[in-house]
Amino acid sequence: MIIESSKIGDLPQIITVSRKTGVFSEEEVDTVDELFRGYLKSPVESGYNFLTAREGDKVVGYACWGPTALSKGAVDLYWICTASEAQGKGVANGLFEAVKEAARQAGRWIIVIWTSSRDEYQPARSFYLRMGCTQAAQLPDFYDRGDDLCVFYLKL
Amino acid sequence: MIIESSKIGDLPQIITVSRKTGVFSEEEVDTVDELFRGYLKSPVESGYNFLTAREGDKVVGYACWGPTALSKGAVDLYWICTASEAQGKGVANGLFEAVKEAARQAGRWIIVIWTSSRDEYQPARSFYLRMGCTQAAQLPDFYDRGDDLCVFYLKL
Repeated sequence: MIIESSKIGDLPQIITVSRKTGVFSEEEVDTVDELFRGYLKSPVESGYNFLTAREGDKVVGYACWGPTALSKGAVDLYWICTASEAQGKGVANGLFEAVKEAARQAGRWIIVIWTSSRDEYQPARSFYLRMGCTQAAQLPDFYDRGDDLCVFYLKL
Repeated sequence: MIIESSKIGDLPQIITVSRKTGVFSEEEVDTVDELFRGYLKSPVESGYNFLTAREGDKVVGYACWGPTALSKGAVDLYWICTASEAQGKGVANGLFEAVKEAARQAGRWIIVIWTSSRDEYQPARSFYLRMGCTQAAQLPDFYDRGDDLCVFYLKL
């Protein structure tokens, strides 16, 4: 597996990978598409960066991150997403390490993750804790009634 | 004092009020200007709303808030700002109550405030606690080294 900056041709597979997780709503899939196009135009202007994990021609996962507005030190980690058929092979771990390295190279020192308290995000929340993140906050009913905001962070 | 949706002619006084607090950097003053223009064009499209507290012709304070992206329930309260010569008259309290009312009318149920741990924001942090907000998180070195993110919220 190699992890590198995403290429223009990765988009269809990135969309497929997102869809097949079963966690993304169609609206969220559209958002991935939109952010990827912003990244292709200009990572700096759009504020979005994509990393692809690839095995041969196959996209087995991706990460999307970007510097946090108004912050000198933070990056937002928007998504880490592994292809359903590639689960359990350390793809997400590899992507998380790559985001840490990219954040460091961007001169930043804290990774911030906003995620949901919903059941389908339990694997994501467990993953961030395994990666050494701290849960900084849980804001009740933030996304919707019964759907809290969970904020995690990792100091580099 | 009356509090109402800001009018186009309020902008110069809003800029002056912001500058005279001594807390806004010139970059932040520019941001206020930009968001106000977005609000004038379209509060819905820009996502920014301004409320003016006024005594006669004089702007004695303002608030800027907007619905939080990706959330059904939250609004972000960006700034509440009182003219230095009008401190201690309940202007900020009045503006905070007006933001609560506007958030309710927008069908939203939680107000979220992101602010800094720096000394010059101590009065702001105390104010939000007095208004009944809960501090949900403090993310170390988020804005800059030694400059933490403090997240407050109020359930309506």
